[in-house]
Amino acid sequence: MRDQLEAVALSVRSLSMDAIQKANSGHPGLPLGAAELAAVLYGKILRHNPANPRWADRDRFVLSAGHGSMFLYSILHLAGYPVSLDDIKAFRQIGSRCPGHPEYGYTEGVEATTGPLGQGVSHAVGMAVAESMLAARFNRGDFAPVNHYTYALVGEGCLMEGVSSEASSLAGHLKLGKLIVFYDENRICIDGSTDMTFSEDVAGRYASYGWQVLSGDMYDTAGIERLVSEAKADALRPSLIMLKSVIGKGAPTVAGSAKAHGAPLGAEGVAEAKRNLGLDPSADFQVLPEAYEYFKGRKASFSAAEADWNALFEAWSGKYPELRSSWDEAMAPGGINPALLASVKAPEVGADEKIATRTASQTALNAFAKVLPNLVGGSADLQGPNAVALKGAAAYGPESRDGRYLHFGIREFAMAAVANGIQLHGGFRSFCATFLVFSDYLRPALRLAALMKIPSIYVLTHDSVYLGEDGPTHQPVETVASLRMIPNVKVYRPADAEETFYAWKEALARADGPSCLVLSRQNLPVLSKDDPDWRHTIECGAYVVRKGGDVPDATVLATGSEVSLAVKAAELAAPMKVRVVSVMSKETFESQPELLRETILGGKEGSLRIVTAEAGTKTGWEGWTKDREDHLSIDRFGESGPGDKVAAHLGFTAEALAGILTRKP
Amino acid sequence: MRDQLEAVALSVRSLSMDAIQKANSGHPGLPLGAAELAAVLYGKILRHNPANPRWADRDRFVLSAGHGSMFLYSILHLAGYPVSLDDIKAFRQIGSRCPGHPEYGYTEGVEATTGPLGQGVSHAVGMAVAESMLAARFNRGDFAPVNHYTYALVGEGCLMEGVSSEASSLAGHLKLGKLIVFYDENRICIDGSTDMTFSEDVAGRYASYGWQVLSGDMYDTAGIERLVSEAKADALRPSLIMLKSVIGKGAPTVAGSAKAHGAPLGAEGVAEAKRNLGLDPSADFQVLPEAYEYFKGRKASFSAAEADWNALFEAWSGKYPELRSSWDEAMAPGGINPALLASVKAPEVGADEKIATRTASQTALNAFAKVLPNLVGGSADLQGPNAVALKGAAAYGPESRDGRYLHFGIREFAMAAVANGIQLHGGFRSFCATFLVFSDYLRPALRLAALMKIPSIYVLTHDSVYLGEDGPTHQPVETVASLRMIPNVKVYRPADAEETFYAWKEALARADGPSCLVLSRQNLPVLSKDDPDWRHTIECGAYVVRKGGDVPDATVLATGSEVSLAVKAAELAAPMKVRVVSVMSKETFESQPELLRETILGGKEGSLRIVTAEAGTKTGWEGWTKDREDHLSIDRFGESGPGDKVAAHLGFTAEALAGILTRKP
Repeated sequence: MRDQLEAVALSVRSLSMDAIQKANSGHPGLPLGAAELAAVLYGKILRHNPANPRWADRDRFVLSAGHGSMFLYSILHLAGYPVSLDDIKAFRQIGSRCPGHPEYGYTEGVEATTGPLGQGVSHAVGMAVAESMLAARFNRGDFAPVNHYTYALVGEGCLMEGVSSEASSLAGHLKLGKLIVFYDENRICIDGSTDMTFSEDVAGRYASYGWQVLSGDMYDTAGIERLVSEAKADALRPSLIMLKSVIGKGAPTVAGSAKAHGAPLGAEGVAEAKRNLGLDPSADFQVLPEAYEYFKGRKASFSAAEADWNALFEAWSGKYPELRSSWDEAMAPGGINPALLASVKAPEVGADEKIATRTASQTALNAFAKVLPNLVGGSADLQGPNAVALKGAAAYGPESRDGRYLHFGIREFAMAAVANGIQLHGGFRSFCATFLVFSDYLRPALRLAALMKIPSIYVLTHDSVYLGEDGPTHQPVETVASLRMIPNVKVYRPADAEETFYAWKEALARADGPSCLVLSRQNLPVLSKDDPDWRHTIECGAYVVRKGGDVPDATVLATGSEVSLAVKAAELAAPMKVRVVSVMSKETFESQPELLRETILGGKEGSLRIVTAEAGTKTGWEGWTKDREDHLSIDRFGESGPGDKVAAHLGFTAEALAGILTRKP
Repeated sequence: MRDQLEAVALSVRSLSMDAIQKANSGHPGLPLGAAELAAVLYGKILRHNPANPRWADRDRFVLSAGHGSMFLYSILHLAGYPVSLDDIKAFRQIGSRCPGHPEYGYTEGVEATTGPLGQGVSHAVGMAVAESMLAARFNRGDFAPVNHYTYALVGEGCLMEGVSSEASSLAGHLKLGKLIVFYDENRICIDGSTDMTFSEDVAGRYASYGWQVLSGDMYDTAGIERLVSEAKADALRPSLIMLKSVIGKGAPTVAGSAKAHGAPLGAEGVAEAKRNLGLDPSADFQVLPEAYEYFKGRKASFSAAEADWNALFEAWSGKYPELRSSWDEAMAPGGINPALLASVKAPEVGADEKIATRTASQTALNAFAKVLPNLVGGSADLQGPNAVALKGAAAYGPESRDGRYLHFGIREFAMAAVANGIQLHGGFRSFCATFLVFSDYLRPALRLAALMKIPSIYVLTHDSVYLGEDGPTHQPVETVASLRMIPNVKVYRPADAEETFYAWKEALARADGPSCLVLSRQNLPVLSKDDPDWRHTIECGAYVVRKGGDVPDATVLATGSEVSLAVKAAELAAPMKVRVVSVMSKETFESQPELLRETILGGKEGSLRIVTAEAGTKTGWEGWTKDREDHLSIDRFGESGPGDKVAAHLGFTAEALAGILTRKP
C-alpha cells in the first residue's frame, strides 16, 4: 500500500497543477515543491479540527509565501475544511473561495492575507505574541486553555524582505518559543537561482537573532516531525526549520528551475508530471483515495483534540468564572462591546487650555485602556513623543507575558505587521504608533489591514510642518491625504483635546477596518463649539465650530490644527459671515447623505462657496471647492525651522486664510 | 600640549551642544558620543579635500543616523568645508545651511539626505556599487582614476530598520569590499536601553551577510585607524566596525542615558558639560585653537591628495582620450545631454498592433540604453515581468563590475535606496523596477529621491486591476494617485506603445527629481491620434487623441489603459461630440498655462463638461469635474479573476463610460 502521507502529497500536487492549469494562471512551484510539508503539517503536526476552523486554541499556520496558495487550498480541501473541489476548480475566478492569493475572510482556514512578501511571517510573529499574552492572562497552574503553536512557511522572497528581518529580530528578542517557521529552501527565485542575489548564511543570521535553527529534507516527512519536536522542546527560542527542496518537484519539465515558479505547466507539462508521479494523466483534479481515507482516519483524532480542549475549557470556566467572563469579552466577534466604550467619560478640559492632540490622545488612550484590558500596543521606539505610554501597565516581554505595552524597537513595518497578527489571532485590540511621516514605512501593512478588514489602530503624531525643526524628512505634507485614499482606511485628524477623545472612541468602535489617528505635536487651543450637539454630530465626521449665521457667505472645511486657525481667519474676515466646519474624518463626512452634509455646510454644495484648510496637499479637497484658489494647502516639501515660522513661511497664517476668504473672485 | 584630535573632538562637542541649545532643539547624543570618530575620520581617514567638496574621487561619508546632524556640521566646519560658525549658529532655522537633518543640496559636504532611519547606509551601499562600476569602466591597469572608499555611520536605529538588513545582505552578496560602516554602539534608543528591544547578535548577523566584522572603542582614535586599515585590507568583504560608545559622552547629566538622545542639554547641562570637558563654561560656540590648527596643518595634505589625483587623471586622459570623453559625459552636471536623447528614434509601431506598455517600455529602455552607457538599473526579482532586461548587458556582480543590470533580489526598499545611492554618487543614471502596488514597499526611498531632487527612475508595471488573477494584494487602486501627490515626483502613465517611448524620454531628460513609469501588464492597442503634432504636444503632459469637433460636448481625461477605453466610449456616445485627451503626466498637464490647457481640453475649464477615466481612485481628479458622478474610477479593492472580467465587474467598460457621458444631469 502506498504511504498515506505520500498519497496526500501527490494529491496536493495533482490538485495544484490542475487548478493552475485550468485558471491558466498561478504559481505551481511551491505547492509542488512543498507538498510533503502540506501533508505532514495538516496530517500530523497541526493541532486543529478542520470541522471547526475557528476553534480558539487551534494551532495557527500562515502561508507567508502566499503566491503558493494552491498549497493551502489543496490541503484544506483534503483535510476536510470547507473548501470543495468545485471551489478549487474556480481557482482565481471572481467570487471564488480560492482567490489568487490567500485572502483572509474569503476562506475558512486561511489565517491571514498573504502575497506581499515578508508580511505573513510577521503576522505569525504577532500571532505568537498574542498566544503568549493570552496564555498569561488566562492560564492558571492547573489549566492551560491557551496552549498552541504558530507555524509559518516562508520562501527566499519572504526572507529577503526587510520586514521579515525586523519581525524575526523582534521574535528572537521576545523569545517566542512557540513560533515555528519552515523555510522552503529551494534556492530559486523569479529571476533564476538565488545565487544571483542571496548568498547570505540564513542559518547564521537566524541564530544571531536568537532563534533555534534546524535543517532537514522537505521530502522526509518523518524527519520533519522530528524537527518539529526539537523545535517545540526549546521553549525559549523561536525555530527556523530549513527544508531543502526542489521547486516544482514532480514536474520534470520545470522542476528545479525558475520556470516552475509562476506559470501553469501547460497541458503537456501537466500530463508529463502526472505520468512522472504515477498519476493518471487523463484524470483532472484527481485525489488519490488514500488521501481522502487518510484524513477520514484522522477525523476522530482531530475532533477529540477539540473535545478534550472543550472539556478542559469548561472545567476551567467552572473554576475561574471571572476569567471566563473576561475570555468571552475578549473573544466576542464584532469588536468591542459598545456599552464599555460608552462607559468612558469624555475628559473635562478647560476652555482656555492649550493641549497637543497627541497629549490628549494619551489621556484618551489611558481612559479607554482602563476599561479595555485587551487593548495592547506600543510604538516603534517613540513611546514619549507618540504619547502612548499605558499608565500602570507593564511592558510585554519574555519575562512579562502579561504586559500590555509593546516596545517594538525601530521597526515600523514589522510593528504594523505584528500588530495585524495580534489582531488576527483574536483576543486583543492592537494599536501601534510612530511619526505620521513614517507611516510610509508601514504603509504596506496598513494596506493589508484594510484589505483584511481588521481594526488595527495607528497613532500617528507630528502630523504636519508644524513639527518644526526636524525638517522636511520628518514633516508630512502628502501623508494624510495618501492614507485617506487607501480603501477602507479611516483617518481621524482631531482639532483639539475634546475631539481627540471621540477620535479614539470611533476608532475603537470600528470592527471592520483600520483607523489612523493623526495628531499634533504642538499645543492647540480647546475650541468653543457653536454646535451645541457637536459630541453627537461629530459621528458624521464633521460639525460646525463657528456658525457664521444661518446662511454663511463661505464655509471653511478645516481639520486638525487648521480648525483654530480657521476660527481666527473667520474673525479677521468679518463682516463676512464665515462658517468653520471641523472635518475630523473626511471620508466619514463624505459618506453622509447630501442633506446632512448640506446642513453642516450651511448651504447647497453646488452654490455655497467652500474653502479648505489643511496643512498638507490639497489633493483630495479639490472636489469641494468651486475655485482652484480656494485652498490653504502645502503642495511642496517643508523646511527645517521652528514650527510656527515654517508654517508662516508656507503661508499658514490666519491672515492668509482670511485673504483667501475675502478675495474677490 | 593637548592632543590635536582630542581638541577637534572637544570642539565638535562644544559646537554641537551650543548649536542645539541655541536652536532649543536637536539631538546631542550622537555628536557628543561619537566626536572622536568625527575627528579621526575627517582628520586622518577620509581621502578628501575640504576646499573642493565635489572632487570626483573623494571618499564618501554618509551620516546614516541623520538626527546627529551636528556631528556633521561641526566637523565640516572644523575641517574647512564651507560651513561657517554663523551657519552653525543658525542651526535648524529656515534657510540655514545647517537644517535639522542633513539635507542633500543644502550643504557642501553632505552626501545624502538622512534622517529616515536605515536609508543612509543603504545609500552608502549604492555609492559603493557606483564606485566599483565606475572603476570597472574607467580604470586601466596602469591608472586608477576611480579609487575611493565609502563610509557610513549608523546607530541602533539604522540597524533595526529592515531596509538596512536588505541593503547589507545585498552588499555582502556583492562583495563591496570598499564599503566601511561604523556602528556607534551606544546601546541606547529613544525609549531607553536597547535591551528592551534589540538583543540580537549584530556581529553574527553581519558575518552571516558576508561582512568582515571588527570591533573597538569609540574613544581610541589610533585604534579606529587600525581598524579601518584592517577593513581596507579585506577587499572582498564590506566591513562593519563596531565602536562601543557612550551616548552624550561628556555631558554628565545625561551621558549614557536616553535623555541624551533628542533634547538640548539646557543651559545648566551645557555649562556642566563644558566644565566637565575642561572647556570654558561661559564661552559659546567655542573652538579650541588646536582644532583649527590641526586642520590648517592638514590642508596641504588634503590639497596634495587632490593634486596627485588631478595629475593622474590628466595622464590617464592623455593616454585614454575616449575614456576621458566618456567620463566627461558621465560626470556632466545637469543630467543627460539632450542631443543624445534626441538621437534616439521613436519606434515604428503598426497601427493595429496590441502591445503592453511594459513591453514597449522594454523596447524604449533598450533603445536609450544603447546610447546611454551610464544608464544602469534592475528589478527586485521581476526582470521578466517588469520587462527591464538590458539586451547584451552583463549583470553587475562581484566578478562583473562592468555589468549594467542589477539583480536586487526581493528587496524593493533597499533597491530604491541603493538606486538613490548610485545616483548620488555621480556617473550614472539609475532605474529600478517592481510591480506598481509594491511601490508602497519603497515609497520612503522615493520620497527621499524627490526631496533630494535626484532623477531616479521607477519602472512600475502591472498598473491596475487589469493585472487580474493575482488579486487585490497585487492590484493597485490608490497607488498611482498616491505617487502623484508626493511633491516633485513625476508620474507617467502612457496609453500605448508610442507614448511609452516619450515617457522614457521625459524621465531621462529630467534632472531635478524622480519619475515613475506606470505601465500595463495587458496588451493595449496603438492609438491613432487626432492631434497631428501629438509627439510635441505630449510634452505638455496631455494631448488630443479624439477631437470630437472644435467644440466638444464633453471631454474625457483618461490615462494609460483607459484612453483606448475612452475612445470606444466616445464612439458609443455618438452623436454626442466627445473629445478624448490622454493625460500621460497629470502633474505636467496641470502645470501648463490655462490657455494651453483649454486648447487641449477644447473649452473653458469652468464651463466645459469634463469626465475622467482612470482604473484607480478618483482622488486627485475631483478638481476637474463639475459633477461628482463624472468619474469612471475604482474606489475599492479589486478581486482575483481574469483582468477583463475584474475590470468589467468594477464597471470598467466602454459602455459604462458612455453611460456616464450620455447621462442627463
